[in-house]
Amino acid sequence: MTKPQHYTAHEAETFGDEAPGVTIRWVIDEKHGAENYAMRIIEVEPAGHTPHHTHWFEHENFIIEGQGEVTVGDEVHPIGQGDVVFVPGGVKHQYRNIGDTPLKFICGIPMDWIKDARK
Amino acid sequence: MTKPQHYTAHEAETFGDEAPGVTIRWVIDEKHGAENYAMRIIEVEPAGHTPHHTHWFEHENFIIEGQGEVTVGDEVHPIGQGDVVFVPGGVKHQYRNIGDTPLKFICGIPMDWIKDARK
Repeated sequence: MTKPQHYTAHEAETFGDEAPGVTIRWVIDEKHGAENYAMRIIEVEPAGHTPHHTHWFEHENFIIEGQGEVTVGDEVHPIGQGDVVFVPGGVKHQYRNIGDTPLKFICGIPMDWIKDARK
Repeated sequence: MTKPQHYTAHEAETFGDEAPGVTIRWVIDEKHGAENYAMRIIEVEPAGHTPHHTHWFEHENFIIEGQGEVTVGDEVHPIGQGDVVFVPGGVKHQYRNIGDTPLKFICGIPMDWIKDARK
């Protein structure tokens, strides 16, 4: 898949009750031939948040728009457009929208998540 | 490194003559503990372009702002805000700014590039 596509061309999946107001789009993954890393775009509605959870793999984030907070371990940091976040594997984390508009960010994870997801 | 940082906090490096008007910032790499994937942010001034080159590793791109064209193999595609591009490894490619404002995009590559760079 080499033709560029707008990210909204990919289906927005919901997370469920543990992530109110959150959708995720898998914009680069094995469908596109990616062997190393997957790119997802996560959108969080105002007052919404992702699960406060942990897993063995890291996250690489770029904030596209909106105002939020990221919890990494015991620390809470403000995040906004243009910020870059690296969440190491094995650290509990959560993203929260504290603004009035959608919080949108890129969230990259290693393709090895597939092995994890299929355990 | 878990504290978020604005991408402009990272040094903008130039490419040289083969990439006029282009800067690159390594916003996530081994300095942050990334073992799998590096995130760079590339900015191309109007009329600027990246090298028309090839390498064994892929690119994963998200267009932050601006108007451009990406050449992937024999194909040329328009790119703009919100577009996602996957450039497979081993395919000749180039990014070109065709607008009047900077073209800014994320460019992810596997951390194995380090092994390649040190050959």
